[in-house]
Amino acid sequence: MEHLIQKYLNTRKLTEEICAPLKQEDYVAQPIVDVSPPKWHLGHTTWFFENFILVNHFKGYQPYDLQLNYCFNSYYESQGPRVLRTNRGNLTRPTTEEVYSYRKYVDQQMVAFLSTNELNTAVQELFDVGINHEQQHQELLMTDLKYILGNNPLFPAYLPFGKIPEAPDSTPKSKLLTIEEGVYEIGYEGDDFCFDNERGTHKVYLHNYGIQDRLVTNGEYWAFLEAGGYTQFQWWQSEGWEWLKQTGTQAPLYCFKENGKWMQYTLFGVQEIKEHLPVTHISYYEAEAYARWRGMRLPTEAEWEVACRTFEAEKPASANFTENKSGMPLAATNGAFQFWGDAWEWTGSAYLPYPNYQQPEGALGEYNGKFMVNQMVLRGGSCATPVTHIRNTYRNFFHADKQWQFTGIRLAKSL
Amino acid sequence: MEHLIQKYLNTRKLTEEICAPLKQEDYVAQPIVDVSPPKWHLGHTTWFFENFILVNHFKGYQPYDLQLNYCFNSYYESQGPRVLRTNRGNLTRPTTEEVYSYRKYVDQQMVAFLSTNELNTAVQELFDVGINHEQQHQELLMTDLKYILGNNPLFPAYLPFGKIPEAPDSTPKSKLLTIEEGVYEIGYEGDDFCFDNERGTHKVYLHNYGIQDRLVTNGEYWAFLEAGGYTQFQWWQSEGWEWLKQTGTQAPLYCFKENGKWMQYTLFGVQEIKEHLPVTHISYYEAEAYARWRGMRLPTEAEWEVACRTFEAEKPASANFTENKSGMPLAATNGAFQFWGDAWEWTGSAYLPYPNYQQPEGALGEYNGKFMVNQMVLRGGSCATPVTHIRNTYRNFFHADKQWQFTGIRLAKSL
Amino acid sequence: MEHLIQKYLNTRKLTEEICAPLKQEDYVAQPIVDVSPPKWHLGHTTWFFENFILVNHFKGYQPYDLQLNYCFNSYYESQGPRVLRTNRGNLTRPTTEEVYSYRKYVDQQMVAFLSTNELNTAVQELFDVGINHEQQHQELLMTDLKYILGNNPLFPAYLPFGKIPEAPDSTPKSKLLTIEEGVYEIGYEGDDFCFDNERGTHKVYLHNYGIQDRLVTNGEYWAFLEAGGYTQFQWWQSEGWEWLKQTGTQAPLYCFKENGKWMQYTLFGVQEIKEHLPVTHISYYEAEAYARWRGMRLPTEAEWEVACRTFEAEKPASANFTENKSGMPLAATNGAFQFWGDAWEWTGSAYLPYPNYQQPEGALGEYNGKFMVNQMVLRGGSCATPVTHIRNTYRNFFHADKQWQFTGIRLAKSL
Amino acid sequence: MEHLIQKYLNTRKLTEEICAPLKQEDYVAQPIVDVSPPKWHLGHTTWFFENFILVNHFKGYQPYDLQLNYCFNSYYESQGPRVLRTNRGNLTRPTTEEVYSYRKYVDQQMVAFLSTNELNTAVQELFDVGINHEQQHQELLMTDLKYILGNNPLFPAYLPFGKIPEAPDSTPKSKLLTIEEGVYEIGYEGDDFCFDNERGTHKVYLHNYGIQDRLVTNGEYWAFLEAGGYTQFQWWQSEGWEWLKQTGTQAPLYCFKENGKWMQYTLFGVQEIKEHLPVTHISYYEAEAYARWRGMRLPTEAEWEVACRTFEAEKPASANFTENKSGMPLAATNGAFQFWGDAWEWTGSAYLPYPNYQQPEGALGEYNGKFMVNQMVLRGGSCATPVTHIRNTYRNFFHADKQWQFTGIRLAKSL
Repeated sequence: MEHLIQKYLNTRKLTEEICAPLKQEDYVAQPIVDVSPPKWHLGHTTWFFENFILVNHFKGYQPYDLQLNYCFNSYYESQGPRVLRTNRGNLTRPTTEEVYSYRKYVDQQMVAFLSTNELNTAVQELFDVGINHEQQHQELLMTDLKYILGNNPLFPAYLPFGKIPEAPDSTPKSKLLTIEEGVYEIGYEGDDFCFDNERGTHKVYLHNYGIQDRLVTNGEYWAFLEAGGYTQFQWWQSEGWEWLKQTGTQAPLYCFKENGKWMQYTLFGVQEIKEHLPVTHISYYEAEAYARWRGMRLPTEAEWEVACRTFEAEKPASANFTENKSGMPLAATNGAFQFWGDAWEWTGSAYLPYPNYQQPEGALGEYNGKFMVNQMVLRGGSCATPVTHIRNTYRNFFHADKQWQFTGIRLAKSL
Repeated sequence: MEHLIQKYLNTRKLTEEICAPLKQEDYVAQPIVDVSPPKWHLGHTTWFFENFILVNHFKGYQPYDLQLNYCFNSYYESQGPRVLRTNRGNLTRPTTEEVYSYRKYVDQQMVAFLSTNELNTAVQELFDVGINHEQQHQELLMTDLKYILGNNPLFPAYLPFGKIPEAPDSTPKSKLLTIEEGVYEIGYEGDDFCFDNERGTHKVYLHNYGIQDRLVTNGEYWAFLEAGGYTQFQWWQSEGWEWLKQTGTQAPLYCFKENGKWMQYTLFGVQEIKEHLPVTHISYYEAEAYARWRGMRLPTEAEWEVACRTFEAEKPASANFTENKSGMPLAATNGAFQFWGDAWEWTGSAYLPYPNYQQPEGALGEYNGKFMVNQMVLRGGSCATPVTHIRNTYRNFFHADKQWQFTGIRLAKSL
Repeated sequence: MEHLIQKYLNTRKLTEEICAPLKQEDYVAQPIVDVSPPKWHLGHTTWFFENFILVNHFKGYQPYDLQLNYCFNSYYESQGPRVLRTNRGNLTRPTTEEVYSYRKYVDQQMVAFLSTNELNTAVQELFDVGINHEQQHQELLMTDLKYILGNNPLFPAYLPFGKIPEAPDSTPKSKLLTIEEGVYEIGYEGDDFCFDNERGTHKVYLHNYGIQDRLVTNGEYWAFLEAGGYTQFQWWQSEGWEWLKQTGTQAPLYCFKENGKWMQYTLFGVQEIKEHLPVTHISYYEAEAYARWRGMRLPTEAEWEVACRTFEAEKPASANFTENKSGMPLAATNGAFQFWGDAWEWTGSAYLPYPNYQQPEGALGEYNGKFMVNQMVLRGGSCATPVTHIRNTYRNFFHADKQWQFTGIRLAKSL
Repeated sequence: MEHLIQKYLNTRKLTEEICAPLKQEDYVAQPIVDVSPPKWHLGHTTWFFENFILVNHFKGYQPYDLQLNYCFNSYYESQGPRVLRTNRGNLTRPTTEEVYSYRKYVDQQMVAFLSTNELNTAVQELFDVGINHEQQHQELLMTDLKYILGNNPLFPAYLPFGKIPEAPDSTPKSKLLTIEEGVYEIGYEGDDFCFDNERGTHKVYLHNYGIQDRLVTNGEYWAFLEAGGYTQFQWWQSEGWEWLKQTGTQAPLYCFKENGKWMQYTLFGVQEIKEHLPVTHISYYEAEAYARWRGMRLPTEAEWEVACRTFEAEKPASANFTENKSGMPLAATNGAFQFWGDAWEWTGSAYLPYPNYQQPEGALGEYNGKFMVNQMVLRGGSCATPVTHIRNTYRNFFHADKQWQFTGIRLAKSL
């Protein structure tokens, strides 16, 4: 099982590399409920392997510390009581050092377990989930640490300024890719890993539609903003308009006006907004309002998936999305335009089960199925998504008001 | 335009008949934000005709009182500022008597206007919307006054006890109606009135599925409840489980245990729960949890519509849902089983625009389109729905936690 | 016991006279938690006599309706469960008519009981509490109906406009009355009724101080407001400043600027602010901030009581406070300056027990004692206080943020 | 000014010694709004010296970093905008190391400044305030870190277990010390430092009263608790009873029942409750309810101060309060019963200005004066109070619901 050991160790290492630029203090804070402390991510991903694999399947395994179950269980009702989600930022103990010891211990045990070559199919599936679970938390680590640093009055950079990649100085005009009416099939088909919510393959009927060949840029979005879009009710859903008024939102997250210029906190610190980069850190409400202002709409997830499969190969030569240039093997780090993976794209589809969705038995049944209400599907991937974690059938989901992920917009239109 | 005048007067009269059994005090209260005071419904439906038809299209029309715009505008941003929705119950003035005068004035003017025979198509459409709008508020009046009375410690009946219809003493076992895989068309097609959200006709691909031929009964639902369903997380969506814990919900709305028996507040007062009647006043969370417990699921709205069209004729001979027996021409008052209209049936579909949805220009564009996020579609109709208001393409929508409508469950299953 | 019967009937009649100008709808609403529906006041004061006197002391008494205990118990833990205070506005039943029947029944029974001449001292004390309790609710009725009407977008008048008393066109400059340092005695001494919290007489040491001979006028207060007082933190308590920011308060309650003029809702409708009348409807925070701005302070309750006793006779010849001119025997209705009773005067004393305070046994022990924390004492009386209810030892109390009572300011100063 | 330098350095050193046992992570968290992160205390006390002394009075002083004003200003409106109090726990930067650098820089500058011997009286007063301010934060550091650790699921000890002092195995029965009726003088008189709120000396009239010679013990308090005190409304203020129900409080803070035994988190970790130690970590509501249950009351602050002056010398031979045994020169560390300083004693007095209170000009006027509403006075001191910070005129103050300070009870009684 050498390749599993390698996969395991690489995944685990990347998580720690993401944390490397952090100060001790950055590991602790939870400024809003959505943002978990980095320390908690480190512990929770470890608990996942320990709790679901080692405890149940590695004979004679001695848990590191039984109290950690309470600290690092996220939302698994079946796995017992746990710290309230809102209180993760109060957990000053275990310390980060202790969490790293916990990681080390579990890593050693996992390697020992993987070396036994005794993984039956069920365990191998758990292993895959564990890897993909940790990859999801790698992305969350990036978005959460960005939030922690980007809401600090000192605006500390996560990555050294010297590393800032150049932004493109032009963007090709967007084109409308078109798909013809008919029955299509979507959903994951294959033997590699996918989440339960991507299954099973099924048919959908799509009418003629067009979909843009690239994401909406800051320049395009700011046209909406400068035209007064945030003060005109007619573009907004009723809940979106309430959200605007209650939160006082006037621009995408991390953006503010200073001395007449629009600035933006990035992982490299505060910079002027670059108009040729994709707009990001927007809520579904903002994406939807922008689309309406343009006289278009968001694609459904089926439209997105079919278009992605059809046009995946056509990568434009220029442009790229660049906030993450740390050399980490996350998406979009290759300097090329990550056609369908610059930012998570809000679709016009609610997150609901596919027709034949089967919720897995046991604890992992809680992984995806119980969140299928009141959230919207996002497709694609972002500069913070590990490259091996991107699939054109992948169904990401967040509540309509969330801005802290790397979210963007691709417009569509019925033809 | 005599038939329009007749339609108008009949509609307006029914609204007032629904209010007839109320005491003066019942017209005022707003116990929760969802429930508007009956007085407000009376004024708002009147404002709708005055504001959208008379003011704009009846030459020389003198508004009754310009201040009422502020009181009776519901959510139309385009129509200016308005009383906060949460504050409708504080509006002791205008008095109910004044509101009835307002109604009378507007009715006279509307009759005068309709007598001019000068309705162009646009105005005729507005007229239809006004009628259907008032019908929607007739149903809301029923559900709101039920809430007002049913949450009063004295549990006053709305209708005299002598009028209670008999409940069936048996229910035929439910059967599974089956539909074969293929492309179907849904959405409103025809020349009569429909709401913008039912347009335009479009194709959907459905896989083989079965759908029950009748609603779930109290007896069936209580099996879930008595088996501990409300205390077992595994049946619930994550948000549903939180909702249960936060609200302390232990049964459908209006139901409580007294001296070992399950009782229920109905429009006739408190009665023992009748096991052969459809379960009602449940949230989407409850419907979804029940379906999961049964190993089934809720139908999508497309599945529902196709099944309804296919099987509409097959009305079982017995059973009926009977809370409304006032002699009013509302649905289900005919004593026969209202096959697809006993209660609004939660579907598994989120309320989203159809592929070719066109939001109307102007104020009426605010009618439906701006609510298309974070709500679920309900299909069918209920004992409180005016009979002429029921259509198999009708898309009702509410938030997943709402129980105060006459909501029920029909189960489905992929085959 | 004829005089008791007379006292009883007069008191009960005044309560109903206060309600006479109301519309049916006005009886029901509870726009904020502090404001109880007039219907509730009518029922609660009746319940007080029934529950504490008739039920316990009138042999063979048949309660009107046992369910009303739940509806009309205010805060007596010892008297069983009761409707949540926030839900009083949802009680559309019993109707006002039923509440008046309830009043009539209890009144007949009370007269019968009082005619038996069998009142022992304990019962006589309960009777006195009942009378004074109803008088307190007469004042609350006035302030609550003012709030209900004054927050209605139509601003309906409570009293016909023709009855508006003339405001004085000048106010004598305020003078400082001075009291010399020494030991004084405060608290109620005498044989008539007083509340438990006014007992027992005790000594206090007062240092030299001065106290104004009249209340602060609107003209004087608006000088503070126009000088920017509501936007300058330095005059405000920390909690007061937070309160300003959270509530957006920019003036006393019921005051707003329209077309460049400061207007005020009064019981006669909206009028321009009269600068020679006492400022009223202010919170403790506002009173305290104003005093600080003037370089003075609020008197303690002991300072107030000693000054009142010393100078009570010195009524200035002019001026008066005039909002209540209905002909009801409430304070300040005599057209003369109600020297120590124009408005309830915020003192600088927290509401705490006197040194020898004895909380009564039983339910009436809950009347005053359990509120002795986090409230401030007000002294004097107002135009809405029944004249026989005013005493110079009377300790009224409200939370520091409350504005809906007729509250005012008299300044003091250490000498 | 060598003695000032010494005083300064000793004070600053103690603050850092208190933090020495902390882990890096413990410096960051703010589990409730009352509890500031230790890092923030370290920065804020430094900012106080820098902002009020160095910036204004040390010619040529270069501020360490102007951005820190925003981070470390607590509540001084006059000193500009600042991080919201609720967001202190989100400030992962500046890091603790940077804060220590900040401390070091300011300390060097302060020593340089103090060495100039140029302190005029005004600056010397500022210096005294700075020292006393830092001492207050030393106590807050102790209570805040106790809260952070004591609410962690791992219950980490702050001090090593080996250091736990022995608890007394008996407590002398409490005696009632009596004071005779008459005029007394209270308030600070002398030339040493005191806070503005302790000034000026003034006379009060006290009636005959008795006051206990020691604090209420756990044993005595648990008698109340075990008798059902927390479930019987009659002992509680109305607001206290609501607080109990809303928070679910069933015992003093840090106390919980495990396997039938009452346990308590202390700075040494979780231990069984020691019945001979003073009860602590109780709210005013609890103190007041307990007193009522005992048929006694809390002393007023004047009664407390007069008794303390009269009986200060009479220290009983045994007993002591012992949670802090770290060797730090905080109160009660001498192993002897700290007669008037075992715990902060809730008095029955609201925190209000003394008759001649003068709020200082400028920023320091915000120190005490603006908090004089809705808080209760505590007298004495606690095991966490620096010994040189205890005075019998000292007026501590907290809201009635706060439990996280070392608060206790001494009963009194009118005679």
